Amino acid sequence: MSVSVFEHPLLSGLLGDDEVSAYFSASADIGAMLRFEAALAAAEAAEGVIPARAAEKIGAACDALEPDFGRLKQSTQRDGVCVPELVRQLRAALDAEISAHVHFGATSQDVIDTALVLRLKDALRILAARLDALDDNLADLADRFGENPLMAHTRMQRALPIRVADKVTAWRRPLSELGARLAETGGRLLRLQLGGPVGTLEALGDKGQAVADRLAADLGLSSDGCWHTDRQALVELAGWFSQVSGALGKIGSDVALLAQNEVGAIRLAGGGTSSAMAHKQNPVAAETLVTLARFNATLVSGMHHALVHENERSGSAWTLEWMLLPQMAVAVGAGLNTALRLTGAVEAFGDPGGDGQVQR
Amino acid sequence: MSVSVFEHPLLSGLLGDDEVSAYFSASADIGAMLRFEAALAAAEAAEGVIPARAAEKIGAACDALEPDFGRLKQSTQRDGVCVPELVRQLRAALDAEISAHVHFGATSQDVIDTALVLRLKDALRILAARLDALDDNLADLADRFGENPLMAHTRMQRALPIRVADKVTAWRRPLSELGARLAETGGRLLRLQLGGPVGTLEALGDKGQAVADRLAADLGLSSDGCWHTDRQALVELAGWFSQVSGALGKIGSDVALLAQNEVGAIRLAGGGTSSAMAHKQNPVAAETLVTLARFNATLVSGMHHALVHENERSGSAWTLEWMLLPQMAVAVGAGLNTALRLTGAVEAFGDPGGDGQVQR
Amino acid sequence: MSVSVFEHPLLSGLLGDDEVSAYFSASADIGAMLRFEAALAAAEAAEGVIPARAAEKIGAACDALEPDFGRLKQSTQRDGVCVPELVRQLRAALDAEISAHVHFGATSQDVIDTALVLRLKDALRILAARLDALDDNLADLADRFGENPLMAHTRMQRALPIRVADKVTAWRRPLSELGARLAETGGRLLRLQLGGPVGTLEALGDKGQAVADRLAADLGLSSDGCWHTDRQALVELAGWFSQVSGALGKIGSDVALLAQNEVGAIRLAGGGTSSAMAHKQNPVAAETLVTLARFNATLVSGMHHALVHENERSGSAWTLEWMLLPQMAVAVGAGLNTALRLTGAVEAFGDPGGDGQVQR
Amino acid sequence: MSVSVFEHPLLSGLLGDDEVSAYFSASADIGAMLRFEAALAAAEAAEGVIPARAAEKIGAACDALEPDFGRLKQSTQRDGVCVPELVRQLRAALDAEISAHVHFGATSQDVIDTALVLRLKDALRILAARLDALDDNLADLADRFGENPLMAHTRMQRALPIRVADKVTAWRRPLSELGARLAETGGRLLRLQLGGPVGTLEALGDKGQAVADRLAADLGLSSDGCWHTDRQALVELAGWFSQVSGALGKIGSDVALLAQNEVGAIRLAGGGTSSAMAHKQNPVAAETLVTLARFNATLVSGMHHALVHENERSGSAWTLEWMLLPQMAVAVGAGLNTALRLTGAVEAFGDPGGDGQVQR
Repeated sequence: MSVSVFEHPLLSGLLGDDEVSAYFSASADIGAMLRFEAALAAAEAAEGVIPARAAEKIGAACDALEPDFGRLKQSTQRDGVCVPELVRQLRAALDAEISAHVHFGATSQDVIDTALVLRLKDALRILAARLDALDDNLADLADRFGENPLMAHTRMQRALPIRVADKVTAWRRPLSELGARLAETGGRLLRLQLGGPVGTLEALGDKGQAVADRLAADLGLSSDGCWHTDRQALVELAGWFSQVSGALGKIGSDVALLAQNEVGAIRLAGGGTSSAMAHKQNPVAAETLVTLARFNATLVSGMHHALVHENERSGSAWTLEWMLLPQMAVAVGAGLNTALRLTGAVEAFGDPGGDGQVQR
Repeated sequence: MSVSVFEHPLLSGLLGDDEVSAYFSASADIGAMLRFEAALAAAEAAEGVIPARAAEKIGAACDALEPDFGRLKQSTQRDGVCVPELVRQLRAALDAEISAHVHFGATSQDVIDTALVLRLKDALRILAARLDALDDNLADLADRFGENPLMAHTRMQRALPIRVADKVTAWRRPLSELGARLAETGGRLLRLQLGGPVGTLEALGDKGQAVADRLAADLGLSSDGCWHTDRQALVELAGWFSQVSGALGKIGSDVALLAQNEVGAIRLAGGGTSSAMAHKQNPVAAETLVTLARFNATLVSGMHHALVHENERSGSAWTLEWMLLPQMAVAVGAGLNTALRLTGAVEAFGDPGGDGQVQR
Repeated sequence: MSVSVFEHPLLSGLLGDDEVSAYFSASADIGAMLRFEAALAAAEAAEGVIPARAAEKIGAACDALEPDFGRLKQSTQRDGVCVPELVRQLRAALDAEISAHVHFGATSQDVIDTALVLRLKDALRILAARLDALDDNLADLADRFGENPLMAHTRMQRALPIRVADKVTAWRRPLSELGARLAETGGRLLRLQLGGPVGTLEALGDKGQAVADRLAADLGLSSDGCWHTDRQALVELAGWFSQVSGALGKIGSDVALLAQNEVGAIRLAGGGTSSAMAHKQNPVAAETLVTLARFNATLVSGMHHALVHENERSGSAWTLEWMLLPQMAVAVGAGLNTALRLTGAVEAFGDPGGDGQVQR
Repeated sequence: MSVSVFEHPLLSGLLGDDEVSAYFSASADIGAMLRFEAALAAAEAAEGVIPARAAEKIGAACDALEPDFGRLKQSTQRDGVCVPELVRQLRAALDAEISAHVHFGATSQDVIDTALVLRLKDALRILAARLDALDDNLADLADRFGENPLMAHTRMQRALPIRVADKVTAWRRPLSELGARLAETGGRLLRLQLGGPVGTLEALGDKGQAVADRLAADLGLSSDGCWHTDRQALVELAGWFSQVSGALGKIGSDVALLAQNEVGAIRLAGGGTSSAMAHKQNPVAAETLVTLARFNATLVSGMHHALVHENERSGSAWTLEWMLLPQMAVAVGAGLNTALRLTGAVEAFGDPGGDGQVQR
């Protein structure tokens, strides 16, 4: 047990995903924030809002800054966000006449939301690749075992015979549709957030839109208005995470049922061992998929609660997102890796023959 | 208090929606089921699976049947579904040689899932129309009050002035995007379910696809494979319901904050009265929007749990959907009606002038 | 499908509980409210706050009132509660000089919360009796089948043999502890709510405590201060409901696993039939216990959210309780009835013998 | 943003609790597991189950072991638990004839569940002390400001005047009752888990109970039967965590509302600063209490789902507990620390006087 299984030295072996987790580290976060500040200065300079030289200096300072994490942590307790202190540190690294141009017209939320989206963009690419790889694994199962007979079970009772191919199709199809849906969901998600203190970019005068467009293009995001109080895209993403976890949980549940000794319709390499029963071959990966599905099904609720976002910025609702969404991303990442391992470990699949052996 | 506020003689006045509720009544459900059975017989006859005369008789029996609800209820306790008894009643109304052709090749889930989708299709049309009407109301608010100054609040503190138009835009935009997304979500939802006992339509031989295509066309649904174990479209819809409720909850929360006596930035006609304090004007509709948002944010979680659907049919996961999704549909319907009422009752909107009066 | 399965003409056969539901009907609610108003008047008269004759007349009017439910529903939309209109109707039935003494010093919340507690008290008595009856059924199973061998399963794999008695003990024990805990939980729950508009009973002057004590004694509740903003006892009760449902869901899950054809370690009378597969004997009651457990596990979350209750009365948080708690009470009631039916239908329990038959 | 805010280098400043977190570190966990193994051996030796010398050697090996965390992590992926590998490492440190006595009769779950309870026992002591300290802070607020007038607000509208003392009483009372309830909840929680592979301690023959009693006494726990499949005590604890968080969230919500500039009924030292608006004094601690309440209200649901625990050990349900309960413990710990800070920072409390200043 640990506070978070995802960062636990032991349990992360079962439930973690280092590759996706990396995008939610403090250094990745600060890195994306500094990338935002540098690109903001560049866009503002290009539009004549701040001097070109200031943008250069700010860019260089962003590259060079070695943030004082201790102070950032302290100030986060006071301010609820690390940005005021981060901006202070950045300004302290610059000459007085330059420092006023840092973070010009922006607010903490612009930095934090955009830095999140930048990292989600990369994380989604990883998840999409794993969905593809899992589809390959499932196609391979269908190739190897598809023609084998398999007793269907409805309401936990034997129903009528199907083929392994029917089962695999039922697993693949929702994952394939969820993969296709990622383009829609991503389109709503991968947007620059730039609104200034209250969403109106008032400090940029009539240059607001132009700066936003430039900044978005530079960061590889779309520029489609301010969403500081509109958290729908993050909630939709959380739903997508949980739907993928649910599709994997259904596979895990099926495998655990089929792998029961009494059913014996699937055989897996590398089952879990027991500290007390040497004969056990536990379907740990399959059970883990169910766990991760229920975890994300639980957390998704909190993201929906965070839609009730008071006025022009809700400290309480916004912070709740931070407590939930990264965990959901890692849980789906861990689920995909676990499903890849599980589907790669199938040695036999289909009803046992007359000799009681699972068919190869 | 009542078991369900949606059907409570008093509380449904506050939280109910008779129009959407009607689609979830037992008679609407049975009606859609009989429509399915009649259309199935017609499609099977057209493909030569059953005699044309059988289809005619079955269609007539479906029209004429007055179901014995008492027996349907009793058998639902035993079977978990009402379909076996409904089919028995339908067969009992027909000659022996016809009755065998009733429900041919289908299973209870085909009937129940398709009957649900047929009713959701109509319910979604109502919700879409209300979203449009709400957008009109919001546009009207922007027209009437858009130029009025309004103090923005971030983290529950006064921030900087914006205009009422900025606030209204922040309310409209997520609703407008959710309205647009309904086409995507609906595309995945409005599909015929026809799979037979284990999803393979084996009783229809090589006519399965042709029957399904005909049946889907007749019912105004797409024919896109069997989804008996793939509950993703219903979960996505539940997420959409909760996201709309959340967008409305944000409006409600804002209005309740702006309508505080000390803030006085919005004035509503017809506020709630108190049994003890005659001077009170309670923002009941605004509070209700928050309640409905948290209700759907709670229930959406259970729909995600229902994705862990064992093997070829899970009695437990499937039944859980029935307990949650209709309530979510009515909650979002009630929310839209409440929001229409609330936005139609705005008498003044914007910061109080020097005289302390809200601006008109 | 219906808005609420608990009131659905067909699905209530599977998932409903008419006996517990009765306490949450509008008429039971109004009845308890009028009982409160009558008893309040009596207590106030006894303490000299209002004339004795007024209390008599009010008591008689409460007995005689036939509320206009149409107006109550309408006013609930406006006021968020039905009490102002109910008081108005009560007053209209009395002479002018009496009518001012109706509801004196109280507020809507006093009426609604106390009326809820009065009904919960009766409902809990029913649930406690069912817990006892279920314990008897389980004891009977242990008597009949306890010595039969039963293969234990850990992580979905055969582990080591135990006896049926071990399994039954594992089912009984949590239910027995939950039964015992009801006294503690009930002690915190069964309290009069009387605070007046803002919880200070200011209209009763120095008679507040004395009136409250008398009123509580009359209603069979404790008098232990005002809890209008302290919703902990209701949340604790919701947790208890869900914990009981969870204990039953564990039984249901075990039975469904043991009743699999391939395992065959329990045989039940009266299994569910299928519309398409005549050979099926579906463990519908066992599955239903899992469904109800997951339903309450979902709803309990919303009750915890309702603890964030703004200032001296939160319309939004309070209303959320109304949408959730009655459903949870009925779900646990339905679960207990289902478990009684299920445990009463066990015909054989224990590992199949050499002949493959479940042991009797 | 980070995977877990509780371990995030920056956000843990706002949302973390190092003191409670320490009990959920891998080393604390492994330490408690080794304490269990040593005490088990001692208890078994005292009852003559294993040789006294074996117990001594095992005890010494438990003290001396420096676990190979890399291997523990790897094997956790395969086995779902770290115990088989931990036992292997322990045995490898002992002579062959001693090593067979390690972990004798026990199973992984005995080790993991008891090690959890041992750490929760200490964590609860910390939480109880903070509840006491918070009660002191609240008493102090009542002493300093109790007689000040304060406008009550119901349904987000000004209602009638109360005193600050009334408000503080409404905050204290639920926390005080929750503190008192901890004894009941703890009594059900602080139990040894010792059941062996399937809960029957069959390897210990007739010494099972005696060993369990000794072991429990040594570890400071009660010995009250095996609860490997009965997760109710952990769920009750999760409910308690969330109820405390909810009581704190109510305080946070009230403070944020009272601290609004337009209301001005409370003044706090050290408010949060903004990166864009120098005049802001954000009530960050108050908002954080709301966030933590909603976080625990979300997670508690998953703990209830984990009650549906299949047969004699559910890998999926058990693992879900590990993902949720530690986070809930730290969230409530962080909430108590935040509430201590918040209540300690109150500089003025009560309605503004004629000069618009909050009363001191």
